[in-house]
Amino acid sequence: MKILVTGGTGFIGSHTCVELLDAGFEVVILDNLYNSQRDAVDKIEAISGKKVVFYEEDCMDEAALEHIFQAHTIDAVIHFAGYKAVGESVAKPIMYYENNLMTTLALCKVMAKHHCKRLVFSSSATVYGDPQRIPIDEECRLGPTTNPYGTTKLMIEQILRDLYRSDEEWNIALLRYFNPIGAHKSALLGESPNDIPNNLMPYIVKVANKELPVLHVFGNDYDTPDGTGVRDYIHVVDLAKGHVNAVRKLLDAHIGVDAYNLGTGKGYSVLDVVRTFAAVNDVEVPYQIDPRRPGDIAVCYAQPDKAWKELGWKAEMDLEEMCRDAWNFVRKAADR
Amino acid sequence: MKILVTGGTGFIGSHTCVELLDAGFEVVILDNLYNSQRDAVDKIEAISGKKVVFYEEDCMDEAALEHIFQAHTIDAVIHFAGYKAVGESVAKPIMYYENNLMTTLALCKVMAKHHCKRLVFSSSATVYGDPQRIPIDEECRLGPTTNPYGTTKLMIEQILRDLYRSDEEWNIALLRYFNPIGAHKSALLGESPNDIPNNLMPYIVKVANKELPVLHVFGNDYDTPDGTGVRDYIHVVDLAKGHVNAVRKLLDAHIGVDAYNLGTGKGYSVLDVVRTFAAVNDVEVPYQIDPRRPGDIAVCYAQPDKAWKELGWKAEMDLEEMCRDAWNFVRKAADR
Repeated sequence: MKILVTGGTGFIGSHTCVELLDAGFEVVILDNLYNSQRDAVDKIEAISGKKVVFYEEDCMDEAALEHIFQAHTIDAVIHFAGYKAVGESVAKPIMYYENNLMTTLALCKVMAKHHCKRLVFSSSATVYGDPQRIPIDEECRLGPTTNPYGTTKLMIEQILRDLYRSDEEWNIALLRYFNPIGAHKSALLGESPNDIPNNLMPYIVKVANKELPVLHVFGNDYDTPDGTGVRDYIHVVDLAKGHVNAVRKLLDAHIGVDAYNLGTGKGYSVLDVVRTFAAVNDVEVPYQIDPRRPGDIAVCYAQPDKAWKELGWKAEMDLEEMCRDAWNFVRKAADR
Repeated sequence: MKILVTGGTGFIGSHTCVELLDAGFEVVILDNLYNSQRDAVDKIEAISGKKVVFYEEDCMDEAALEHIFQAHTIDAVIHFAGYKAVGESVAKPIMYYENNLMTTLALCKVMAKHHCKRLVFSSSATVYGDPQRIPIDEECRLGPTTNPYGTTKLMIEQILRDLYRSDEEWNIALLRYFNPIGAHKSALLGESPNDIPNNLMPYIVKVANKELPVLHVFGNDYDTPDGTGVRDYIHVVDLAKGHVNAVRKLLDAHIGVDAYNLGTGKGYSVLDVVRTFAAVNDVEVPYQIDPRRPGDIAVCYAQPDKAWKELGWKAEMDLEEMCRDAWNFVRKAADR
């Protein structure tokens, strides 16, 4: 079975390619390398001991997609391609709407033309906006989203639902990610943002590595055990495995269009993560408490049972492992 | 002052061009003639006694837009271009999302590049979904929409709000139309769908003209005075004038991004319209009662006070005039 992975050299995409190859799938990657490096392909092949086919193309480019679908019989697509920085999406909304919506529309058009109607879409827990209840289950109210990045994810979910309504041959899994962190055990693949990171773990790593002086913790007066925000961190390899299970589900059964939370179901506070990271890696992570950031919520974690019941998937790795692997990736990268 | 009108040869667009010219604006039209005729340009010029500049181009075509903005100093844009058939949008959602979203994104990109940031957007009362209250005011809850056409309008409103948030120089009026019917008094411009119409008035006209045998009335058991659905019908020339007032507002003041209902504030039932049409035009409109259509709501009419207070606009023409002008257009067209 051959899987097209758009955005397959990115953080989650590259880990997913490894898990697909390990599970016996053939993998075709499309990525424009806008926010990733070509050597991710080599690393995927090095880890898995298998070859992938790589196209350096833009997923908005229908002619490029057409060429790929002519050259390969694609059984299913996992669609990661898209811009993903929350803050940038606020500053450049048109760029985000154009890229994230257009890649998806172009992909769906070409898929339909080639009668390939199995799609796993890279959505996000941001579609829940300020969550209706905790833990968040898939029946929670969607939106209003709090930034254009999240709005593109919610819009694409809506578009895919309408697509299914127009043609019930489509078989679509919407995977709503919580907070993926960590890295591959090999330390070949991980998360390495080029600029100052928005997310907690890349920031912690840069502070631990003395690239940044201090971690800013935004608010310690939330209604949580230690006052800092609580999130559902999930090891990126666990998340990647969830995609393999979703692809298998689409190959085995017709689900129509359905959404699955990919999270651990456990919430950790910012200070939990900081302390665990410092302890397991024996490093210092100096932090300071700053005011709350507008738009941040106190607590967000998943009710992950649906993915377990319907996809047979659940997260296996704990916070210590996530912290160890994230640091291991950065230390090994520094040695190379 | 020079106004670019995308979709300017369509039903509402063409009437708006006439009103803009009458009000002393210069008009540049961009239309791909997908759902309209080139002779609309001649008719606009004949009615107004003034010339317009016409570009037969697609509004998704950034190079074409770039050419227009290089050739003209555009003071504001009225953006009508888009697909508009509800039923077709359910059958072909990708086509609707691609066209309606992409035309808008391409337009905004090129406008921003040329520092033209005054935009009147052709939205719809469909953004209110099943309305929270009647009459519908602009503070009513938006969505969930009931078809992809309506969803494109709601998504574009959201995109334009995010655009404004990213750059407060933008000055954007979202005009939410109720049910435009009627035609220009000259009988040169009106609504002439090519196939079986979705909307009430074009259907009535075809039945009165014996092109179709009988009008289907979907449901007479709604909680309304005569049991048939109630809508806010507005004369297309009144609606067109609302656009002129919106453009003037954007030229005079900075409103940021704001929404205005364009309706009469009066609700008429299907049978009110049928009887009024038959009476004022002295024709027969045979009808039969069929079951309700899924997704139809009982009552929908506007609270139009905001447009009056802030744009100085209100609808002037009554249902008899709408019915007379609609029929006049078709009879004269038949004579030509």
